[in-house]
Amino acid sequence: MSELAVTERTRHRRMRENGSVRKADLDAVLAAGFVCHLGVVVDGTPMVVPTVYGATGDTLYFHGSVASRSLQQDPAAELCVTVTHVDGLVLARSVFEHSVNYRCAMVYGVPRVLADEEKLEGLRVLSEQCAPGQWDYARRPNRKELAATTLLALDLAEASVKISVGPPDDGEGPDAELGLWAGNVPIRTVFDAPVPAPDLADGITLPDHIAALRTA
Amino acid sequence: MSELAVTERTRHRRMRENGSVRKADLDAVLAAGFVCHLGVVVDGTPMVVPTVYGATGDTLYFHGSVASRSLQQDPAAELCVTVTHVDGLVLARSVFEHSVNYRCAMVYGVPRVLADEEKLEGLRVLSEQCAPGQWDYARRPNRKELAATTLLALDLAEASVKISVGPPDDGEGPDAELGLWAGNVPIRTVFDAPVPAPDLADGITLPDHIAALRTA
Repeated sequence: MSELAVTERTRHRRMRENGSVRKADLDAVLAAGFVCHLGVVVDGTPMVVPTVYGATGDTLYFHGSVASRSLQQDPAAELCVTVTHVDGLVLARSVFEHSVNYRCAMVYGVPRVLADEEKLEGLRVLSEQCAPGQWDYARRPNRKELAATTLLALDLAEASVKISVGPPDDGEGPDAELGLWAGNVPIRTVFDAPVPAPDLADGITLPDHIAALRTA
Repeated sequence: MSELAVTERTRHRRMRENGSVRKADLDAVLAAGFVCHLGVVVDGTPMVVPTVYGATGDTLYFHGSVASRSLQQDPAAELCVTVTHVDGLVLARSVFEHSVNYRCAMVYGVPRVLADEEKLEGLRVLSEQCAPGQWDYARRPNRKELAATTLLALDLAEASVKISVGPPDDGEGPDAELGLWAGNVPIRTVFDAPVPAPDLADGITLPDHIAALRTA
């Protein structure tokens, strides 16, 4: 699959120049982060909750507890999972033309509750997306911890992607004569130096995979 | 108002140690960003859309176009607006105890559509939150542009805040004997150097308020 299927929900309506139907763009947006905003309907009204996720080429994994209120009411409830990266401010000559550069993926569907090997694999994907290397380094979940974890999987079958890049575009109209500065200001997310836990025993050194986060 | 009113939707259910009912915490979380995730119900299913916002002590402003599909169906539709700042990874000795440090505000309510002076003031608040100084520097919206803009206001009357900080807390159990590194890795959002638009005329210098974004 190299193109995303277009449904009534994923068809781009506004600013269509930003819409992408490339599966590679969806994969790239999902791979670039580890926090999504999960939308559920509770008692008829929306609730949007941030939570961590992991994604493979066809599945998005996340913890079920965040959606518990909704799932308890309706196990077959539709979800919307949105992943957004804010890449910069677009500062035009006029306030009206101001915008934001961003990459955003929205995934719709009914999640599956995972069990056994699939649950463990989903947890591995989620863990590795948030903190690469920790699945092999830290102690893995035992039977009791696995039982206490609800893991959901959402197929990437119905998804849309929007990507906005570049400078403001009001440089050819009358506003260009105003003599105002225009351009964009890139925004990045950075990791600072790891902070050892206050109760960390002496002599335990920082592993390379955590030190490597700084340059991510 | 120094404490947030607790409703069925805003009562903290999980990890209550992270829940705050301080109005000052709500204000601080909203002031620290300019992108929210807006949750609406469309045809009975949730949709979560990122958009810019501005907030005062009692009102959150955002563009109406992002919610247009929902608002066209039901002007009195309930919304959920969530603002999240991801502050760091919490790397414990066990995968199970891993978590994320974050600040999150969720605001519920039915938005009002603004007109006239209130609309202009809302746009000013939104503009200043995204790019402080641009409201006075750039050309402000003219009559036609104002008419083309839908601005919504959501009261901050029903909101909840969650804040998670600090190191992992599995340093006192048996996992502490594993000899593994544990701690947290702070995450920050930074502005890079402003990039002039390719069509920017010669001799237009970068204004101080945009240069100042770098240290934000």
